[in-house]
Amino acid sequence: MNIKDAIEFEYIFNPRAVALIGASSDNGYAYSLSNSKLWDRLYFVNPRYDELSGKKCYHSVLDIPVDIDFVIIAVPAIHVPKILAECIEKGVKAAHVFTAGFSETGITERIKLENEVRDFAKGKIRLIGPNCMGIYCSKSGLSFTWDASFEEGPVGVISQSGTFGVEFLNIGKIRNLKFSKVVSYGNAIDLDCPDFLEYLADDPDTKIIALYMEGTKNGRRLKSALAHAAGKKPVLALKGGVTEHGSRAASSHTGSLAGSPEIWSSIFRQTGVAQVEDFDELLNAALALTYAPYPAGKGTSIITNSGGFSVLETDVSVKAGLAVPQFTQETLAQLRKIVPVAGTSISNPLDAWPIFYNLSGTEGNLGDVIKILSRDKNIHSIILHMDEINYLRRVLGPAFEGHFKEVIGLMLNGCKYARDEMGKPVMLCISMETFTEDEEDRRYHLIVKKTFEDARIPVFPTLRDTINALFNLYRIGLRFSKKHEATANA
Amino acid sequence: MNIKDAIEFEYIFNPRAVALIGASSDNGYAYSLSNSKLWDRLYFVNPRYDELSGKKCYHSVLDIPVDIDFVIIAVPAIHVPKILAECIEKGVKAAHVFTAGFSETGITERIKLENEVRDFAKGKIRLIGPNCMGIYCSKSGLSFTWDASFEEGPVGVISQSGTFGVEFLNIGKIRNLKFSKVVSYGNAIDLDCPDFLEYLADDPDTKIIALYMEGTKNGRRLKSALAHAAGKKPVLALKGGVTEHGSRAASSHTGSLAGSPEIWSSIFRQTGVAQVEDFDELLNAALALTYAPYPAGKGTSIITNSGGFSVLETDVSVKAGLAVPQFTQETLAQLRKIVPVAGTSISNPLDAWPIFYNLSGTEGNLGDVIKILSRDKNIHSIILHMDEINYLRRVLGPAFEGHFKEVIGLMLNGCKYARDEMGKPVMLCISMETFTEDEEDRRYHLIVKKTFEDARIPVFPTLRDTINALFNLYRIGLRFSKKHEATANA
Repeated sequence: MNIKDAIEFEYIFNPRAVALIGASSDNGYAYSLSNSKLWDRLYFVNPRYDELSGKKCYHSVLDIPVDIDFVIIAVPAIHVPKILAECIEKGVKAAHVFTAGFSETGITERIKLENEVRDFAKGKIRLIGPNCMGIYCSKSGLSFTWDASFEEGPVGVISQSGTFGVEFLNIGKIRNLKFSKVVSYGNAIDLDCPDFLEYLADDPDTKIIALYMEGTKNGRRLKSALAHAAGKKPVLALKGGVTEHGSRAASSHTGSLAGSPEIWSSIFRQTGVAQVEDFDELLNAALALTYAPYPAGKGTSIITNSGGFSVLETDVSVKAGLAVPQFTQETLAQLRKIVPVAGTSISNPLDAWPIFYNLSGTEGNLGDVIKILSRDKNIHSIILHMDEINYLRRVLGPAFEGHFKEVIGLMLNGCKYARDEMGKPVMLCISMETFTEDEEDRRYHLIVKKTFEDARIPVFPTLRDTINALFNLYRIGLRFSKKHEATANA
Repeated sequence: MNIKDAIEFEYIFNPRAVALIGASSDNGYAYSLSNSKLWDRLYFVNPRYDELSGKKCYHSVLDIPVDIDFVIIAVPAIHVPKILAECIEKGVKAAHVFTAGFSETGITERIKLENEVRDFAKGKIRLIGPNCMGIYCSKSGLSFTWDASFEEGPVGVISQSGTFGVEFLNIGKIRNLKFSKVVSYGNAIDLDCPDFLEYLADDPDTKIIALYMEGTKNGRRLKSALAHAAGKKPVLALKGGVTEHGSRAASSHTGSLAGSPEIWSSIFRQTGVAQVEDFDELLNAALALTYAPYPAGKGTSIITNSGGFSVLETDVSVKAGLAVPQFTQETLAQLRKIVPVAGTSISNPLDAWPIFYNLSGTEGNLGDVIKILSRDKNIHSIILHMDEINYLRRVLGPAFEGHFKEVIGLMLNGCKYARDEMGKPVMLCISMETFTEDEEDRRYHLIVKKTFEDARIPVFPTLRDTINALFNLYRIGLRFSKKHEATANA
């Protein structure tokens, strides 16, 4: 990225002052920014108000007494050209056009309006949108959703869909995912996906790029930007509109020509981008990349408390592209000493519910089991499946609280050993029914979740999520991990 | 099923009296049955106690003063033969051997013990297990999990895995799924999957059969039982151990020889059984079959409030085997009158957030939209995706509560019209983050869930779940619905 472009992007992500044009009490942007560190550098513009949310409201951007680097335009589509003219006169560097109702409607006059806006702005002001949510930046405090966390983190998101930008921030906050920047770019009449890709590729605050796109106007440029970014850091991509009907939907949504799914898959493969299948996979892969080291191979060990799930988890893992190899003889011998025989399987997957909860009264505990597995040369990663809190609460009664703390401590101890001493990723799956109304049960599950998150271990809500995330970690590790070379030569 | 077998199964599912042998304070069965209507006909047996949970505890089954039809045996494996001898002497008709530690361990002496038990029981007492959870029956009150609902329902479950039996009951209770019988059959040294299949095929209380299996001892008999059952009612099957590593795990779990995945898929196809890929799909398909009519074709309409999700949902639907066809000209014309243009797409999928929440102030509402779509001849089913409760709460503030009730009422009205007047299935997806800690948000989501469940509309927590369930409903409808013939001739 050249210096001129880099400076323009600084105006966008870290503006000295921002104006919200079309600010109103039922407009979400005022809320979005009200808890942000940007609040003091935010100016409202709307001729209908003199004050909004306790802040002076200007009738025109031209009335604001300080320099404005960046504006958010939330006025009806037909007023956008007039507003842009004022911004240019004011010397604004970049504008995010939130407003929808342009080319994506498919209506001739609206397509014409979009073209007018593009031609008018060209060379005078940089544009994001229209028909998009715009910019979130954890460092500067720009945002487009309520209650966004401004904790800084490694994930940079580029999304053609506004909802996905919002969902990334909302779900990310719940799931311990933290962001450098999130961009929703919509119809992209000026700044487009490749521009943001190039910027994030060079952005030192961004370590992982997650991408949602429906189409492109310039395949050659996109391909080159993808290759540039994926050469520097992990890039995950979700392509919407890979079926004929989905492609029609994409055209309605952002006016994109979606292209054939084979062409897109081929572009991603050639550029080293990891294509994913849905939004959950995109988010979970980013979570795994944030917290877990790369596995040095595809061999995983599954520790569970259900024989049925151990079988299905193995099937799902193998179908995903992982392996669930048998343990070495040494591991088996060590496990036999501490895992009781009835109702358990001393093999991989390890269906070992008594040891899982340290209920057996035998010589070892779950922490020891995890340590033993992590030393096995066939095992490059560990999946812990925790699904029996409710069961234990019933069986142990008042003794549960103390036991629970002890078992979580042992698990955590084993997991840290596996990761920090043996360099192997550990993924925790905490199964909990989304719609459950057992609040006590929810409380315990959330304690486990937070305990592991605090130790920087990724936590997932379903087995499919866990396994897909591990597979993505593995395949991206093939590009970025030095451990694979060591394994290949071993 | 012949009369002798049918009588034996009556003893198992609807016993006059039951004994729990090996009852103890840390044994789950006492809890499982304590809230059940069976409690007064339950007898505890354990030489170590004179009383348990306020109930007399007998030292031997022979001491019980009434006839016992069915026993649950929860004593260590080596004591099982002695206990069985007593049961036979007592005249017990059938025994569920809960105890694990038999052939599934792979240990020679344990395999020998299992063979001894089988040979000893043969012709004298029917056996379920060992290594399994046994029998749940909503009518009689038999159960193997705490807090099971005894509301009667159409789903019969046969599971080689005990955990899946438990999960079906626990998750089913949360998800509005209701059961006739649930059987966990484990090592199956006597009564096996085909026996239960034949029984449920003829059981008037069972309308849908859900099956989890890892292998079989008699493929020919299983195939014949599958064909018999699938000729009479929908049969869903999840096969564990379809990969090489998964097959090894299955062997550790229940001692099953898993066989090649191709052979199993071919058996399911030939017998008319709908094979599914994981536990969630099995449960969600059973939910759809319980509450929704069969769609007359693969054309579905998706109503959502996000362009990004509308594109991905379309991709997922088409990949699953459904279609998201364009509306007829008449439908489009009707929609154009009531759906505002900016930020929405008047096409299928219908990305129409203003109308979705009746916020537009235009002439129509979401109820009208659903009715219009349901009259479209290209559309055989409707997926409603509700994902913006949180957004509305923020935007509307104190006005939300009233608005919320009104919109839910309109939606419900439209859905009932589609189902009852037009005979088309409607599926509701309520996206909610499993780990969310926003309790207000959870409360509203759960109100929507219950409102629709009360109207017998199936509710799902994710889009993938919703779409997979609809596809299963569609493909099973090809066998059982008369509507397809009408469509084929239209």
